[in-house]
Amino acid sequence: MTPGTARPGGRTARNTAAVFVATLDEIAVRPYDEISIESIATRAGVHKTTVYRRWRTKADLVSQALAAAAESLIEVPDTGTVDTDLRVLCRSVQAMLASPRGAATTRSVLAGAAASAEIRSVMAEFWATRLSAIAVIVDRAIARGEVPADTAPGPVMNAMAAPLYYRLLVTAEPLTPADADRAAAAALAAARAGVFAAE
Amino acid sequence: MTPGTARPGGRTARNTAAVFVATLDEIAVRPYDEISIESIATRAGVHKTTVYRRWRTKADLVSQALAAAAESLIEVPDTGTVDTDLRVLCRSVQAMLASPRGAATTRSVLAGAAASAEIRSVMAEFWATRLSAIAVIVDRAIARGEVPADTAPGPVMNAMAAPLYYRLLVTAEPLTPADADRAAAAALAAARAGVFAAE
Repeated sequence: MTPGTARPGGRTARNTAAVFVATLDEIAVRPYDEISIESIATRAGVHKTTVYRRWRTKADLVSQALAAAAESLIEVPDTGTVDTDLRVLCRSVQAMLASPRGAATTRSVLAGAAASAEIRSVMAEFWATRLSAIAVIVDRAIARGEVPADTAPGPVMNAMAAPLYYRLLVTAEPLTPADADRAAAAALAAARAGVFAAE
Repeated sequence: MTPGTARPGGRTARNTAAVFVATLDEIAVRPYDEISIESIATRAGVHKTTVYRRWRTKADLVSQALAAAAESLIEVPDTGTVDTDLRVLCRSVQAMLASPRGAATTRSVLAGAAASAEIRSVMAEFWATRLSAIAVIVDRAIARGEVPADTAPGPVMNAMAAPLYYRLLVTAEPLTPADADRAAAAALAAARAGVFAAE
């Protein structure tokens, strides 16, 4: 077994979980450039070498902690229709962004991204990975004939998520389940109209 | 004449322009909480009392500088069709966000918003004002029968702008004129499908 590989229920898995929680806690409470592997290790109650052994850089660690949180918080629905899949996914994103912790973490990560090209590149990679996980919703919709066959998943997912992040980050308006439903419906209407055809 | 009222071409107008430029420069280069009326006055080459006489708080000044920049950078088009109006508006937003200064200012303001409830409230007010300026595009589209009569302007404008800010701030992807055209087309398709009906 490779050193540092997570065994479910084992010490490595427990340490990983503790380090990820500590990473997100650090992100939620202080600017990205004030966070260090050391501050995360201290918060997680593990030795810093335990963290360094597995993640060489803060960017690696933040990227993986975000990916793990996204996977556990935002399940990819498979309800049988694209309408419901998109609405359920959008509701999950909205619930995450509307929660105090979700809002604080998101604002904090993105403030970090504003100040650092490194964290922007972490974010870009994170979103590319997330996109490949949720693209399956569009693939299934195409297979069922619910959207045009040449619909590109990326723009659909961006169109769906963007209005929610925009309300949180830009217009600072409240974020409700009705906003989620509207974002999902708008993305689907545009997809059906052929706006998101692959180029 | 009220003290501090801008006379076009007069000393007050020149001072106002210099203070607004200095405010946006400060926003683009340092975190919001490190900016002060004093640092803006120094950069603008005016005495700080000149600034304080007209703007009581940093939030007032930032809000007005942003509004002035938005008005001068983003003209509200009136081309005769909603398709073109939305595409032109979206291209202006995209060009602003894709420029190094526009990107830096936007990131900086929004990083400030992440850290400060005050700047979030400035932003919310700024966006509400901007919305009322561009809502006329939707009003004209309704009058021409191009979108359903009960279309609410706010969601249309959010749907159009959101994917552009999302690419800049969240996914950190490049922002091209093609993205602008797609965002405009998606917002219009959803509007035509009745997704943005007023509640």
